[in-house]
Amino acid sequence: MKIAIYGYGNLGRGVEAAMKYHRDCELVAVFTRRDPASVITAGTPVYSADDILDFKDKIDVLILCGGSATDLPKMTHTLAEHFNVVDSYDTHATIPEHFERVNAAAEKSGHIAMISGGWDPGLFSIARLYASSVLPEGKDYTFWGRGVSQGHSDAIRRIEGVLDARQYTVPVPAALEAVRSGECPDLTTRQKHTRECYVVAKEGADLARIESEIKNMPNYFADYDTSVTFISLEELREKHSALPHGGSVIRSGKSGLTGEHSHTVEFSLSLDSNPEFTSSVLVACARAIDRMHKRGNMGCKTIFDIAPADLSPLSPEELRKTML
Amino acid sequence: MKIAIYGYGNLGRGVEAAMKYHRDCELVAVFTRRDPASVITAGTPVYSADDILDFKDKIDVLILCGGSATDLPKMTHTLAEHFNVVDSYDTHATIPEHFERVNAAAEKSGHIAMISGGWDPGLFSIARLYASSVLPEGKDYTFWGRGVSQGHSDAIRRIEGVLDARQYTVPVPAALEAVRSGECPDLTTRQKHTRECYVVAKEGADLARIESEIKNMPNYFADYDTSVTFISLEELREKHSALPHGGSVIRSGKSGLTGEHSHTVEFSLSLDSNPEFTSSVLVACARAIDRMHKRGNMGCKTIFDIAPADLSPLSPEELRKTML
Repeated sequence: MKIAIYGYGNLGRGVEAAMKYHRDCELVAVFTRRDPASVITAGTPVYSADDILDFKDKIDVLILCGGSATDLPKMTHTLAEHFNVVDSYDTHATIPEHFERVNAAAEKSGHIAMISGGWDPGLFSIARLYASSVLPEGKDYTFWGRGVSQGHSDAIRRIEGVLDARQYTVPVPAALEAVRSGECPDLTTRQKHTRECYVVAKEGADLARIESEIKNMPNYFADYDTSVTFISLEELREKHSALPHGGSVIRSGKSGLTGEHSHTVEFSLSLDSNPEFTSSVLVACARAIDRMHKRGNMGCKTIFDIAPADLSPLSPEELRKTML
Repeated sequence: MKIAIYGYGNLGRGVEAAMKYHRDCELVAVFTRRDPASVITAGTPVYSADDILDFKDKIDVLILCGGSATDLPKMTHTLAEHFNVVDSYDTHATIPEHFERVNAAAEKSGHIAMISGGWDPGLFSIARLYASSVLPEGKDYTFWGRGVSQGHSDAIRRIEGVLDARQYTVPVPAALEAVRSGECPDLTTRQKHTRECYVVAKEGADLARIESEIKNMPNYFADYDTSVTFISLEELREKHSALPHGGSVIRSGKSGLTGEHSHTVEFSLSLDSNPEFTSSVLVACARAIDRMHKRGNMGCKTIFDIAPADLSPLSPEELRKTML
């Protein structure tokens, strides 16, 4: 299967690295909107995004490694006119409209466009679906972290006087424990997660004002217990340059003629590198849609539409023998 | 969707109870190989298994609630000649031959027969497949318990002088912890699980001999650290009449150009009632194969072949909006 990467940031580099492990895939090209001469890959040839249509017959699946805020809403449906594509669109609230736009393009061109691959949306969504299908009467919880939220880190960086920042989302241990025990508690935003901010201030900046602006920022921090720690640029680089993440999806539900039995289903991830894990999911999804396309499928798909067997390099016989 | 139950033991009763929660399903009949007059259900009409062919046009999916040792190897392929069926065949080593036998019958009759639904095989298998597809370089672990193993309880009951028994499979906490930390340890059978046996002896029986026979029983107990506690029949009934179970599938794997990042994926279940949870999975699978059959699919399927969306009562639009 021939794969290409469109956009070469953290996610694109992750897809390139994932090729070491997904040995049935061949990475043929990286496409960039920057000057190709300025992009240094780990060995993959780099081409200008302007030349992508020259590769129409040389690529089975194009993995789109742009951001959800501005890139993918323009990119996915446009490229689905010419290629099978996979993206990691993760703005949950606008997934339905992204789906409609992409589906129209993919159905028209006869390609498959798989959107919202990754872990949330992605593997976490699958965990929610399996658990709620099996236990219709119950309650779902999603906890994120401990991990770096890039959106929250960016929000801090936009405050005047801030040079750099890193924000960790941290689940509250007592809340996790209550949910795991099957208590089905009602939890406020504040009761589920805390936010830890490590901030490098510019020389002479008003630290009290920066701390107050962070803690009172609506949506991002105001509804959470937030801690702010000022550190040096050296310490930030030394201790906070990794991008770990993870979390848990937990559902508790009932069974029995009178609801007398409780069950708890949990799916958890602990990730050293959020972009590299997300990339690995995207490669598995690319394998699946290549197979589905060769069987005659088309249109927009999500992880919900992919039979698990299609994600694996193993044959159905091998899967039944070794994993069932 | 019209469902019927074939076989009315713990699992069959679980399917009947699950109807309270799976409201898009209608339970039309229980079939039994016993005298129907002797079977008391929670309200579902009971018929003799001999009359099942009279129901050919009245049932969308027949859920087979027989055992894997002797019932299902004869039952599933025979009934797949006339019905869409779901079973919970759980003898891992012989799944491939069960598949072939059932597939031949279902392909010939144009039905779908889904085998090995439940949680292991079933949801645990899915967890293994997703994690290994995303992290091809890594190591899998499955821990079971704390929970009642019916096979091990039965094995104890067959020892002379034993009136009744209950066996719990218990994961070793230190092993679980080492695996969750991403260490990828090599673990022997003994290092992964212990076995707790609660035994009611007949009056005057030789307790030392019974204990020794249990602890030295090949395959079942000899490779484990096993504890044997003799209790009264009253205590067994009072404290050990439930059928809890559960466990965890954990995979640790690597990513990055030099394998520098580790990730841990875990799927865990904590179940008050093993048969009721298994039944709930079977009902969700029945929903999926009814839909797949109506789209023209046939033959033998496993949970690996079912797109997750087909398991849910929600529409694809609702799923994308609420769960992705």
